[in-house]
Amino acid sequence: MLIQPTRKPSREATEAIVRMALLEDAPWGDLTSQTLIPADATVTALLVAREPGVLCGEDLITAAFALTDSAITTDFRLHDAQTFAASDLLATIHGPARAILQAERIALNFAQRLSGIATLTAAFVRETEGTHARITDTRKTTPGLRLFERYAVRCGGGHNHRFSLSDAVMAKDNHLAILSASTSRTLRESLSALRAVVPHTTHIEVEIDTLAQLDTLEPLLGTTIGTVLLDNFSLNDLCTAVLRIGGRALTEASGGITRDTIRAIAATGVDIISAGALTHSPRALDLGLDIEP
Amino acid sequence: MLIQPTRKPSREATEAIVRMALLEDAPWGDLTSQTLIPADATVTALLVAREPGVLCGEDLITAAFALTDSAITTDFRLHDAQTFAASDLLATIHGPARAILQAERIALNFAQRLSGIATLTAAFVRETEGTHARITDTRKTTPGLRLFERYAVRCGGGHNHRFSLSDAVMAKDNHLAILSASTSRTLRESLSALRAVVPHTTHIEVEIDTLAQLDTLEPLLGTTIGTVLLDNFSLNDLCTAVLRIGGRALTEASGGITRDTIRAIAATGVDIISAGALTHSPRALDLGLDIEP
Amino acid sequence: MLIQPTRKPSREATEAIVRMALLEDAPWGDLTSQTLIPADATVTALLVAREPGVLCGEDLITAAFALTDSAITTDFRLHDAQTFAASDLLATIHGPARAILQAERIALNFAQRLSGIATLTAAFVRETEGTHARITDTRKTTPGLRLFERYAVRCGGGHNHRFSLSDAVMAKDNHLAILSASTSRTLRESLSALRAVVPHTTHIEVEIDTLAQLDTLEPLLGTTIGTVLLDNFSLNDLCTAVLRIGGRALTEASGGITRDTIRAIAATGVDIISAGALTHSPRALDLGLDIEP
Amino acid sequence: MLIQPTRKPSREATEAIVRMALLEDAPWGDLTSQTLIPADATVTALLVAREPGVLCGEDLITAAFALTDSAITTDFRLHDAQTFAASDLLATIHGPARAILQAERIALNFAQRLSGIATLTAAFVRETEGTHARITDTRKTTPGLRLFERYAVRCGGGHNHRFSLSDAVMAKDNHLAILSASTSRTLRESLSALRAVVPHTTHIEVEIDTLAQLDTLEPLLGTTIGTVLLDNFSLNDLCTAVLRIGGRALTEASGGITRDTIRAIAATGVDIISAGALTHSPRALDLGLDIEP
Amino acid sequence: MLIQPTRKPSREATEAIVRMALLEDAPWGDLTSQTLIPADATVTALLVAREPGVLCGEDLITAAFALTDSAITTDFRLHDAQTFAASDLLATIHGPARAILQAERIALNFAQRLSGIATLTAAFVRETEGTHARITDTRKTTPGLRLFERYAVRCGGGHNHRFSLSDAVMAKDNHLAILSASTSRTLRESLSALRAVVPHTTHIEVEIDTLAQLDTLEPLLGTTIGTVLLDNFSLNDLCTAVLRIGGRALTEASGGITRDTIRAIAATGVDIISAGALTHSPRALDLGLDIEP
Amino acid sequence: MLIQPTRKPSREATEAIVRMALLEDAPWGDLTSQTLIPADATVTALLVAREPGVLCGEDLITAAFALTDSAITTDFRLHDAQTFAASDLLATIHGPARAILQAERIALNFAQRLSGIATLTAAFVRETEGTHARITDTRKTTPGLRLFERYAVRCGGGHNHRFSLSDAVMAKDNHLAILSASTSRTLRESLSALRAVVPHTTHIEVEIDTLAQLDTLEPLLGTTIGTVLLDNFSLNDLCTAVLRIGGRALTEASGGITRDTIRAIAATGVDIISAGALTHSPRALDLGLDIEP
Repeated sequence: MLIQPTRKPSREATEAIVRMALLEDAPWGDLTSQTLIPADATVTALLVAREPGVLCGEDLITAAFALTDSAITTDFRLHDAQTFAASDLLATIHGPARAILQAERIALNFAQRLSGIATLTAAFVRETEGTHARITDTRKTTPGLRLFERYAVRCGGGHNHRFSLSDAVMAKDNHLAILSASTSRTLRESLSALRAVVPHTTHIEVEIDTLAQLDTLEPLLGTTIGTVLLDNFSLNDLCTAVLRIGGRALTEASGGITRDTIRAIAATGVDIISAGALTHSPRALDLGLDIEP
Repeated sequence: MLIQPTRKPSREATEAIVRMALLEDAPWGDLTSQTLIPADATVTALLVAREPGVLCGEDLITAAFALTDSAITTDFRLHDAQTFAASDLLATIHGPARAILQAERIALNFAQRLSGIATLTAAFVRETEGTHARITDTRKTTPGLRLFERYAVRCGGGHNHRFSLSDAVMAKDNHLAILSASTSRTLRESLSALRAVVPHTTHIEVEIDTLAQLDTLEPLLGTTIGTVLLDNFSLNDLCTAVLRIGGRALTEASGGITRDTIRAIAATGVDIISAGALTHSPRALDLGLDIEP
Repeated sequence: MLIQPTRKPSREATEAIVRMALLEDAPWGDLTSQTLIPADATVTALLVAREPGVLCGEDLITAAFALTDSAITTDFRLHDAQTFAASDLLATIHGPARAILQAERIALNFAQRLSGIATLTAAFVRETEGTHARITDTRKTTPGLRLFERYAVRCGGGHNHRFSLSDAVMAKDNHLAILSASTSRTLRESLSALRAVVPHTTHIEVEIDTLAQLDTLEPLLGTTIGTVLLDNFSLNDLCTAVLRIGGRALTEASGGITRDTIRAIAATGVDIISAGALTHSPRALDLGLDIEP
Repeated sequence: MLIQPTRKPSREATEAIVRMALLEDAPWGDLTSQTLIPADATVTALLVAREPGVLCGEDLITAAFALTDSAITTDFRLHDAQTFAASDLLATIHGPARAILQAERIALNFAQRLSGIATLTAAFVRETEGTHARITDTRKTTPGLRLFERYAVRCGGGHNHRFSLSDAVMAKDNHLAILSASTSRTLRESLSALRAVVPHTTHIEVEIDTLAQLDTLEPLLGTTIGTVLLDNFSLNDLCTAVLRIGGRALTEASGGITRDTIRAIAATGVDIISAGALTHSPRALDLGLDIEP
Repeated sequence: MLIQPTRKPSREATEAIVRMALLEDAPWGDLTSQTLIPADATVTALLVAREPGVLCGEDLITAAFALTDSAITTDFRLHDAQTFAASDLLATIHGPARAILQAERIALNFAQRLSGIATLTAAFVRETEGTHARITDTRKTTPGLRLFERYAVRCGGGHNHRFSLSDAVMAKDNHLAILSASTSRTLRESLSALRAVVPHTTHIEVEIDTLAQLDTLEPLLGTTIGTVLLDNFSLNDLCTAVLRIGGRALTEASGGITRDTIRAIAATGVDIISAGALTHSPRALDLGLDIEP
Repeated sequence: MLIQPTRKPSREATEAIVRMALLEDAPWGDLTSQTLIPADATVTALLVAREPGVLCGEDLITAAFALTDSAITTDFRLHDAQTFAASDLLATIHGPARAILQAERIALNFAQRLSGIATLTAAFVRETEGTHARITDTRKTTPGLRLFERYAVRCGGGHNHRFSLSDAVMAKDNHLAILSASTSRTLRESLSALRAVVPHTTHIEVEIDTLAQLDTLEPLLGTTIGTVLLDNFSLNDLCTAVLRIGGRALTEASGGITRDTIRAIAATGVDIISAGALTHSPRALDLGLDIEP
């Protein structure tokens, strides 16, 4: 029973980004359809999959058409997070021809990108079936689209990492490097001081690159440190780290996560696998709009 | 002598999108660096290529750091549209450590995406060297980033197609299908009527899927129709179409353009090859920020 | 059969500018009607022409009332681009008295200005009847109102020139002056280089002030140069230029276009006559709102 | 000693409207100057009057250039509210040629409109010299430009009326008509009730169309009513009304104010003459930008 | 018969501030209700007073729920400006449980603050019953909420002072101090010059701290000066000042206005008592939302 | 050693809210200072405390003056989070008199409110000295000011709770009531399901009103539940709850927190005490601006 994908971006946020995209694509109207197509022509268009995948973007598609002309209706046969085969009919759009032609590209731009992310995530998740690892996104999202790309990851069965720099602490390699160079305090002292000033609801995650670093952090596991990020660890070292941490903190693997490597990584027992590729390099899924004859 | 890549997005536009991205990534500050790193720590960071490519995004990178803290300086060793090898130093960033850590991800998110587009475009362009075909983008851009993705295409040596629905006419398959179903006028009459109402500066492009359609359009070539878009034509049909049009209008090939197919398509003599993949499915280029020891 | 005036500004754009104007005119409410008029008073108001003209602005008028109070209905007897006589009833507005009084001035400010432009344009167009010249606007529009003023020109039977600096090239006198002073390339070389970098959908127009300049440009007519702008030419020189260009490029006359001079200019055979006065100096048309007794 | 014209629109407001206008005119850059003019070309341009007038708009002109490129300097020889003759040099602009060409039209669009208003106002003011009447604007301003058009009126030696519906009460003919139809209270009772609820800083002005209406209002003059607006009164009736009001309230004449009629109206002794034409139908003043050889 | 409280903030303004507050409180959704509560659960919630007071904020409450989910209905038993006792039911809210829980805090944040202001104002007004003094607010309002806090003051039976620096003149102690130090003109000359340049609808108020200052201003009372602000005057001096001004101008008392002192101050005969505490230090009224079993 | 208060709102956020406030207070300029005070008058003003307290708002004060006129300099003698006595000089402001007078009220409105919050927080913190309880804010903040009011709480030595509905889970009484009425799952099952879908960085806090509810939650402490909110518990029950939870989760007390009750509550050993009053009902601190003679 999936509760998660129902946590949709708000209508406000959805309409705001669609308005922006529509304006970017037609700052002073659609010259072609407004001069070529009769004002009273109506049409039925079919949103069809040209390859298999996982759907994401129904609200954005609906908004792209409705905000261009409120007389357009969009009926979805499938819903976000559901899978489809090539040639499947995803939705039927009906209404004024001019507006449907004007909004087509924007609807597809959103749907192809987000369904691409959902589909890629689902592939990663499938590889890890049977393990308890959760696949998460990162902050490597497209500027302006984070809310929607994170939703796409959830539609594909993945999970979200922190949303932003403001809602969780992640002390990464560069933080630790600068910290050791700029203060006389030990890392342990610094992290304890940090715990004392951030809100009690704030999760603290620390990145390490070697098993040796684990020694330093061990006393803080589970109290100060909620998650240890094991970056670019070998499979052997991942296993060792998971065993040594022993459930006192969550473990997260990152670095070089691909469909080929993910199963072995999940098998090490890590709790979380975060993959930037889900959002920084998805392939747009091939979806098309066919005018019904 | 390249004039083109200097046609950069304006400072206004650059700063606006960077501000948006910074706010999305840190709506109420960077919890980690602001609590862990001393306020007076300064640092030098190196923007380094982890793989070869073409640079795009220097103004966005500079703005990401400067808008986080105006005390940060960013010096580029290379400039937009220039190529680099793996391990090459691209830029040196110096200033307050907190702000550099806060802005790092946003700077990289822009740079990796746009350099990915520039690099992919350059690969396509390289394939067509010696032909006179120009490689162009399409409207399949990321919502909100069109201005910048088109610039990235130019940095890669490609050209731009129309910016939006407002600045050129493109009568595509769906337009023609609806048109024939909804008016009693011939296509030729419709296009002539269109020519009579759009501004004299407006370019008219018409898409055809078969050679047969060319017969209908022939009398309009060069007067009403400026470009004929040959969509998903076989190589043979492309050659035939180019010959028959005979320079009276520009010819554009589209549909299934890949690095494998592009050279043969260019060899047919078409003037323009438009490829949606340049902007809808680029792989993020691997760039990183190293803290100088 | 007029298709053109139906290319209306979008509902989004219309409502946005009306909201701005309503806010400018009543930043914290309408002191008079909200304290003087009973909240439940309703009224019927008549939008009446006080002089003959061409209507433009029905959507803006409707929005001005509806955005002030959605209970107001506005029924137009005439539509945009239609002509009316003095004393003609244009529309009937019915609803809450307070809101109608509050919105009245804003509705009229838009309608009087745009109908003034449409009426002035129609007068210019009438003068050129029987010639094939199209009358166009320029970029001399009121800041913020370009989309609407261009629509008003279309309502008056005129055509639009390029919308902005971004959607067509116009090399004007100042460009040519600077160009010759700052490069060693010939004008022909510069224009060819320009053609090579701008999108293939971009129209190029070049301004000349003397017949002599035509010699330089002649080889580029019809390939690189789409339109020649003949600025402040005498009638004789206009005739000569039109003949020499001989249909290889469009010809446009500009400079000192008035109702007195336009007929003779059109008679020279130029394709386009652009007149800044249409939008920079229209007289507001006298329209009024009468409360029905 | 003029204090008034120094009450300039704020830098914030000035820059906001200029940014909007620049964006409207070049949504994705200036194709012509950015491809035709070398990036390093600099130029000196002269802002020159082509006819006599009163200057208004120096801050907007300065902002139009500076916001396009901060390297541009603009030096004014004259300042707002000063008069000039045809051919007078108004300002010298120096800097990057591309940006000067890009901003030229926007700078002129503002300057020509506002100087047109200032010049027209000055002509009206000149006609009333020797009388004590002040010439004021109305709410018949261009949507979005009210702040600047009111400033232009002040530059021409005129005065401002209320800014908006929110900062003073004006009970006009339509208010009075609806009021009498919708309440059983007398006008006097209604106005007294109004006085009791609006802020003590709020000025109340009431419009009348006939001398007879004055009888009703007389007891309220100077306490409740601060100004009586005498709309479309004959010169005789204006004289009579001014005498009868006898300084207990200010008197304002409106309706059909032109350069031909204004002197006689001022001679009746009215305190204020408000003229919508100042802002709804000014002729753009002819100013030009010459590139220095 | 109260007309005043019906002068409500516009729907535009109300919805804009509610949207902002909802976004501030849930930038990327409500994690708790969207994951814990079934999507189809509906609920009835009761807005209940936990202490007696005066209601203010019904439109904001309605908007907070409706803008979160348009399926929510809000029925008010009482309306703005009405009084209630502890435990009184103020409104019934019905609809989707998720959205009601999400909007609850924002609805209460607005309602508690504004009802706190209305209740405090009503207490001040009650103390001055039987006198003719009107209680007014000041510019000491919460940034961003002035429109609503002024409305709350009206709901409590108070009046508004000027809205902003733009709609009335108030020459306060700091103005007079700087004026005397920086010009050679007398205060009387300065005020006369001011009167000559501000709009005729502008009210002029001058602050004095001592009776002696009244001598200087006396000749200007009623012509140039509309209100004299008597700041921090003793009761005796207030009486004297009111007598000496003798109705030629309005009198306003300010400084140290509390529920303990206000009655005596009102008894001196001043026309206006302005109290910053109404808006800068109100106590939030205790209102709660109970889920109906 | 306090790191916390240096986590200041960003310059972007600070300037944005100050611009909004300045515009709200002077939509079309400051009539008084711009007409009364000579343009070239400069002045030195002293920001002085009229009562003791804790400073908060230096960046907002600086911005209020600098954004009105960049020629104004503001030098602080004390910094945010520092205490002062009555009559202490807090800052010296120097620059153009007009702008200082225009910005004065906005600077004070921010400073008085935020210093009021900091001072009230410091009083609460002082009461709990020697205990290990941290005092936190709630979501009962002023719409639009949350970022700044949370900072004020930190300046007073308090801590922040979650920022918004998006960054932590809090299952409160209304959630639990609806949950039990709308699902057949046990609370334990619901919370476990929730844990499985929210990000691993998300903290989960659950509110209980009785000790009995603790039995149900006990198995989830420390794994699923990070904090137990003990709402309106008696002191005895608080002690019992803290003991029974025994460090497996954090404990938070809320409800009826005042300066009189807080010490005893802290003595029960709770980890967190959250007080809505800190931000919903602070008294504005009395600060003033004196013009230096």
